[in-house]
Amino acid sequence: MYRSPVAVVIGAGDATGSAVAKRFAKEGFTLCVTRRSVDKLNTLVSDIEAASGVAKPFGCDARVEKEMVELFAHIEKDIGPIEVVVFNIGANVHFSIVETTERVFRKVWEMAALSGFLTGREAAKVMIPRGKGTIIFTGATASLRGSKGFSAFASAKFALRALAQSMARELGPKGIHVAHPIIDGAIDTAFIRDNFPERYALKDQDGILNPEHIAEQYWQLHCQPRDSWTHELDLRPWMETF
Amino acid sequence: MYRSPVAVVIGAGDATGSAVAKRFAKEGFTLCVTRRSVDKLNTLVSDIEAASGVAKPFGCDARVEKEMVELFAHIEKDIGPIEVVVFNIGANVHFSIVETTERVFRKVWEMAALSGFLTGREAAKVMIPRGKGTIIFTGATASLRGSKGFSAFASAKFALRALAQSMARELGPKGIHVAHPIIDGAIDTAFIRDNFPERYALKDQDGILNPEHIAEQYWQLHCQPRDSWTHELDLRPWMETF
Amino acid sequence: MYRSPVAVVIGAGDATGSAVAKRFAKEGFTLCVTRRSVDKLNTLVSDIEAASGVAKPFGCDARVEKEMVELFAHIEKDIGPIEVVVFNIGANVHFSIVETTERVFRKVWEMAALSGFLTGREAAKVMIPRGKGTIIFTGATASLRGSKGFSAFASAKFALRALAQSMARELGPKGIHVAHPIIDGAIDTAFIRDNFPERYALKDQDGILNPEHIAEQYWQLHCQPRDSWTHELDLRPWMETF
Amino acid sequence: MYRSPVAVVIGAGDATGSAVAKRFAKEGFTLCVTRRSVDKLNTLVSDIEAASGVAKPFGCDARVEKEMVELFAHIEKDIGPIEVVVFNIGANVHFSIVETTERVFRKVWEMAALSGFLTGREAAKVMIPRGKGTIIFTGATASLRGSKGFSAFASAKFALRALAQSMARELGPKGIHVAHPIIDGAIDTAFIRDNFPERYALKDQDGILNPEHIAEQYWQLHCQPRDSWTHELDLRPWMETF
Repeated sequence: MYRSPVAVVIGAGDATGSAVAKRFAKEGFTLCVTRRSVDKLNTLVSDIEAASGVAKPFGCDARVEKEMVELFAHIEKDIGPIEVVVFNIGANVHFSIVETTERVFRKVWEMAALSGFLTGREAAKVMIPRGKGTIIFTGATASLRGSKGFSAFASAKFALRALAQSMARELGPKGIHVAHPIIDGAIDTAFIRDNFPERYALKDQDGILNPEHIAEQYWQLHCQPRDSWTHELDLRPWMETF
Repeated sequence: MYRSPVAVVIGAGDATGSAVAKRFAKEGFTLCVTRRSVDKLNTLVSDIEAASGVAKPFGCDARVEKEMVELFAHIEKDIGPIEVVVFNIGANVHFSIVETTERVFRKVWEMAALSGFLTGREAAKVMIPRGKGTIIFTGATASLRGSKGFSAFASAKFALRALAQSMARELGPKGIHVAHPIIDGAIDTAFIRDNFPERYALKDQDGILNPEHIAEQYWQLHCQPRDSWTHELDLRPWMETF
Repeated sequence: MYRSPVAVVIGAGDATGSAVAKRFAKEGFTLCVTRRSVDKLNTLVSDIEAASGVAKPFGCDARVEKEMVELFAHIEKDIGPIEVVVFNIGANVHFSIVETTERVFRKVWEMAALSGFLTGREAAKVMIPRGKGTIIFTGATASLRGSKGFSAFASAKFALRALAQSMARELGPKGIHVAHPIIDGAIDTAFIRDNFPERYALKDQDGILNPEHIAEQYWQLHCQPRDSWTHELDLRPWMETF
Repeated sequence: MYRSPVAVVIGAGDATGSAVAKRFAKEGFTLCVTRRSVDKLNTLVSDIEAASGVAKPFGCDARVEKEMVELFAHIEKDIGPIEVVVFNIGANVHFSIVETTERVFRKVWEMAALSGFLTGREAAKVMIPRGKGTIIFTGATASLRGSKGFSAFASAKFALRALAQSMARELGPKGIHVAHPIIDGAIDTAFIRDNFPERYALKDQDGILNPEHIAEQYWQLHCQPRDSWTHELDLRPWMETF
């Protein structure tokens, strides 16, 4: 029996994650989407289904090895072959070094890096035997540059970038495309709207990133023929200082 | 009178430059293509015309300021508004440092960096008043890394990258998209076929870059909405070591 | 009562850590040196004392917040003002991505990055009020580059580098010098001698790093006047490929 | 007959170049110092001689191959074996891209990159047969980052960095130490004093680099034993934003 290929989005939040899920659903992928709280996925699943797509929601803590191992096994067994995996969990915090607690430093790493590792490893396990697949890790400005107040966040995002780079070098020759797009700017989210209204006001001039445009890039990355793969690219609004 | 937008390809050689020209011609751009020897552009122009496109060939030494200034002025006046400019002149040479002559060091820079500067500056002049346009500079492995035997080539490609980066930071806020894709691998060219047959044999496994796929990426860069621009991305075959 | 300034070496192993401790002891610092097992510090302490230096050994698990907080508090209260802190815990492992266990990934990060964070934060707490001090984090090749088989190690070393960079940008303007030397080569250690004999044989030609020379660099970093601070430098044998 | 080893400083200007020359003279090197106008070297030579050092001034345009070839040949034949070469010519200019003339773009490259190439190549020629020597190229903030208004300068400094990196990879295994310190801040010069008085006022707080401290670093680079060479390091005032 034919089963549609599956795209997994770990961290299918309201903005980028949702947009990526919808973009791949539109292309006929069965979408397996996760958040810690499964209820928060209702809107996304409804939206995908309303557009004649197929989506399966999973409540899942991506920091917990057992949950991730079971998730991937379950999808492969009961839903379909995993062809695309997108890791999209962020954990942006801002504290001076002396105000950064051990708990915060650890938690940010667990969310942004350990979860990425578990995601990437489970993806690799199912993709290596098939010799194909796409794994995308979402990067940020802090993936490239440590800054005042960003000891915890930059440390975690650097860790994720090293993972993506190591996996790209290891898995590329096995036919698996590992990419690390770097989002360098504010995204059009409720969080930015509510907390950074001046920033959000730039939306009228395209000064913040539209999640659908990010999603389009992720789709284009997946479409690249294997003689021309991109591992890393930046995405930033035209007016953003960098 | 409506005039089709123009895409200029400086260094429309047989592989990447030609493929980029054809890709933009297919989208309705009038292509203005240059090489040092205008005769070598005959095939490209015929190919574009055979596909119902429009192409104008120019014999032009991109290292000579006067020629470049006149070229851009002529195109703007007599052909159409320049919307896209692609700089694609390479100058890959390999010599030990003590065997690198002053003439080689200077010539490689003139071809790969000075020409890029003249191209970029003339493009900026016509694009700034319109507040839009795309300028793409073709990078290589040596844009990121100096290596044994590559003193001249890496020096010129680093110089071009700095130009692209400086222009991106200066012109982005003026609405102009400056990109620097980095081609990290062998391209399917007559040069590789004739000089590196073992490398060329990897073509069967997609081990060398297809110029049409590079061209597609250039097209995608131009299509990016201005809230989500990429300045730099790498392109490499899946099996390439990096 | 005058108390000699203190230099703390977290991870005073047999090679680099020991050499750094001896180098600073020679300059009159009271050395507070740690390893997980205090017994393993006997030789180092004897060596320092034999050279008329002062050294205090501490058995301490640098991954445990409580131990680190107490260690720094104890030193400041009972031994002397901490002027230099060197973090020197490594955790080099090599596994393919699918063979990397969650336990390994986490442990490598705890050793190389979390411990570095705890060290750096406690150092910052005592140095900020005094407006001076030097904090040095030891980096490696994997701090700059992810590679096949190095998902865990590179991820942890990137994380440490981001921490060092963030702290440098935050604490520099507070008078604290944060440095991140990158050791890019094999060091003359028992581990290299026993496991990589061919590599070790290069010692005759200066092909592996002498820990005393690394220690000299750390000392020089501390000596830099504050108008001319180095944040990052590489250290590699002349014959090392890079 | 014994001849003292020679240190050559190409671009022995009033600040960094002079300080470096004096530092090496103090260690017993015969200093061969160049500027375009030999008269401007009088003070430096007098200062070195007053401190019992030996210095030979040369008026020399480092952009002219013939002059550089003759200079190195003359020194080797008539003065002594060249052991250290420091390239210190800058060419900091600031123009928007459209206001950058071809003349400026070319001249800045000739001063900062072509001259560096001629210096490095002639140094390599005499050092390779001896299997030792130190070559230092002075870098700047713009060596790592292109910025608005810095198309010409960053392009030239990137070019110099690629040269230094390529030479390091080629000549390290031949026993020659190639280093590229990056000065990231204002230096205590007449130029800064006269043109950026607010910046200069930071001198009281060590906010600008003391040329003697830069010179000390260059000396330390030369002193590194060959098992522990640094290729690149940054130097910046404690309060400098980066």
